Amino acid sequence: MIFLYTDFGREGPYMGQMEAVLRRAADVPVITLLADAPAFDVRGNAYLLAAYTRDVQPDDVVLCIVDPGVGTERHALVMRADGRWFVGPDNGLMSIVARRAARCDLWRITWRPENLSASFHGRDLFAPIAALLAKAGLNAAGDKLLSVNAEAIQRPAYTDQYAAIITFDRYGNAITGLDVSTVDPRAMITCAGHLISPAATFGAVPEGQVFWYGNSSGLVEIAVNQGNARQLLNLQAGMALRIEPKAMP
Amino acid sequence: MIFLYTDFGREGPYMGQMEAVLRRAADVPVITLLADAPAFDVRGNAYLLAAYTRDVQPDDVVLCIVDPGVGTERHALVMRADGRWFVGPDNGLMSIVARRAARCDLWRITWRPENLSASFHGRDLFAPIAALLAKAGLNAAGDKLLSVNAEAIQRPAYTDQYAAIITFDRYGNAITGLDVSTVDPRAMITCAGHLISPAATFGAVPEGQVFWYGNSSGLVEIAVNQGNARQLLNLQAGMALRIEPKAMP
Amino acid sequence: MIFLYTDFGREGPYMGQMEAVLRRAADVPVITLLADAPAFDVRGNAYLLAAYTRDVQPDDVVLCIVDPGVGTERHALVMRADGRWFVGPDNGLMSIVARRAARCDLWRITWRPENLSASFHGRDLFAPIAALLAKAGLNAAGDKLLSVNAEAIQRPAYTDQYAAIITFDRYGNAITGLDVSTVDPRAMITCAGHLISPAATFGAVPEGQVFWYGNSSGLVEIAVNQGNARQLLNLQAGMALRIEPKAMP
Repeated sequence: MIFLYTDFGREGPYMGQMEAVLRRAADVPVITLLADAPAFDVRGNAYLLAAYTRDVQPDDVVLCIVDPGVGTERHALVMRADGRWFVGPDNGLMSIVARRAARCDLWRITWRPENLSASFHGRDLFAPIAALLAKAGLNAAGDKLLSVNAEAIQRPAYTDQYAAIITFDRYGNAITGLDVSTVDPRAMITCAGHLISPAATFGAVPEGQVFWYGNSSGLVEIAVNQGNARQLLNLQAGMALRIEPKAMP
Repeated sequence: MIFLYTDFGREGPYMGQMEAVLRRAADVPVITLLADAPAFDVRGNAYLLAAYTRDVQPDDVVLCIVDPGVGTERHALVMRADGRWFVGPDNGLMSIVARRAARCDLWRITWRPENLSASFHGRDLFAPIAALLAKAGLNAAGDKLLSVNAEAIQRPAYTDQYAAIITFDRYGNAITGLDVSTVDPRAMITCAGHLISPAATFGAVPEGQVFWYGNSSGLVEIAVNQGNARQLLNLQAGMALRIEPKAMP
Repeated sequence: MIFLYTDFGREGPYMGQMEAVLRRAADVPVITLLADAPAFDVRGNAYLLAAYTRDVQPDDVVLCIVDPGVGTERHALVMRADGRWFVGPDNGLMSIVARRAARCDLWRITWRPENLSASFHGRDLFAPIAALLAKAGLNAAGDKLLSVNAEAIQRPAYTDQYAAIITFDRYGNAITGLDVSTVDPRAMITCAGHLISPAATFGAVPEGQVFWYGNSSGLVEIAVNQGNARQLLNLQAGMALRIEPKAMP
């Protein structure tokens, strides 16, 4: 399978044009994992990408493109992390996946297509490589890649966890870069001046109550039962979370 | 085929994660019938689900999840209605389909996955069952289900028809829960203080004119030719429709 | 492959219902090329359709439906342009593709389905024909079509190029109907009172700077590096572009 993780949005022809390239080259399912990744925010996306690809299986391919620097100098990267392939720009986006992987190998894409648009490397450069990897791994794509060592890629000084709001879902729930397994389940969390208690999930609190919980991708999320946390608490992407020293009794 | 009917939205990883589970387990097309079902509104969705699954074929599977009570006590349900499979929470969502079916059989899902997240039963519990049903019906899923009788499920006191606005489409057309076959084609309809005449379709009235018609799913819809009924008439979900006693001449 | 080009939006059941018809009838990939085509704007869509289907391969099918006149008198059309099939309403939408094709053949769809809804010919009339063409071309669909000559279709008096904003993408970039190959790469362009310089792509200008460039579909696009041109310049669909006589030195 090929998974798409992008900030292209579902508007416009971008996802369809990329899918057409993939489906022409490889007869495998193409699944849009995320099309509305927060635009321009490479750091936030690095944590989301790690969380959303936990269940990707060995030999599956993740085409991950959040690339504010398209058209400038940055390498094109293939990473194999615990068996899963990642294809995308070398700008830090894959760095949290890399850090958390038990085994991680890296290649630069040295191949360039005949027609490379200035703004859509996802379709022209990365998708053809992803399709080859999905078909037959290095056997198919190896001659277009150059093996590099772990120091050769961008590893921004990101912290292990990102205690901030990265994005919101349809319901206004605030998704953070904080792995729930690193947080005391009884901890109180402060965000935007609000002190927020934990709960197991939506149905565990009264309608309209604010709470935080470990969401289905393993991240701390701030939510309101049958309400909109973003609007109610006036939350914005980038706002920091503080885990309070005193947990609930 | 497997059809998805959810209120998850296309934003975020929810639809993609669910599709990945389905495609891994069953090699059948997965089609998103509705991803933006009105959130929290189980009643309205019960009527929409019935209208939008009229053309689903026997042995196809509808994974239908509008589940404001996820994580609280409610059963997980499999329903076979006139040959079509429905999988989702037992909260009334399937009750209009059940009522209108000539034959309807019911099962509770007794199986629980090893890893069941608190908030995403669509991916963890319902999707694996839907995939098994799509592959081989009860032969594949039977040992994970318990047959129950018709009285064992939630049947809220919904009326046969729902004379109210449930949701809007991209153009601002207002979609109601009123089966057009139950309405005199010449009836005048009042909504939000406006008296609205019928028309066969958009092209049958002048640009900018308000009308109601039987939409392509068989529901009464309020629309404006090349305009936006929601904005023009200041319509909101939940507003009631009244069918006037005097029809057009 | 079948490509969908529509203004239905991804909201509601429209795309899913159409895809279900296609997938039932033909076992080929169905790719959504554009679901948010500018509503009602047949002229703008004629240029977008031409740009977005440049890479469609011979024998692939484009189901293209922007049909404000659905339900009124207009013919249903099949066009073969340089090997690619186009299926949709005869309202001018295909006219720019037709004009630019080296070879172009035309048919009217004379077949009518048993159940033809008044408002959704995409699902009921055009999709079944598209599926037949994808399966076996004229061998499958020929008895439902009537060959017509080039003069028999709508050819509105559109100019060869459309120097105006047609739509915006997720980032607020303004997409025009101007083929970049017809414009001096050093030309200055005026739009909405702003004089705009060219650049190769986003990374080639400082953050926040306005520029125009040839986008990945070959159209002139007005953009801001890591910013939103639509908001920054207060742009709207329909605004004209003027190519200034004096280019950059």
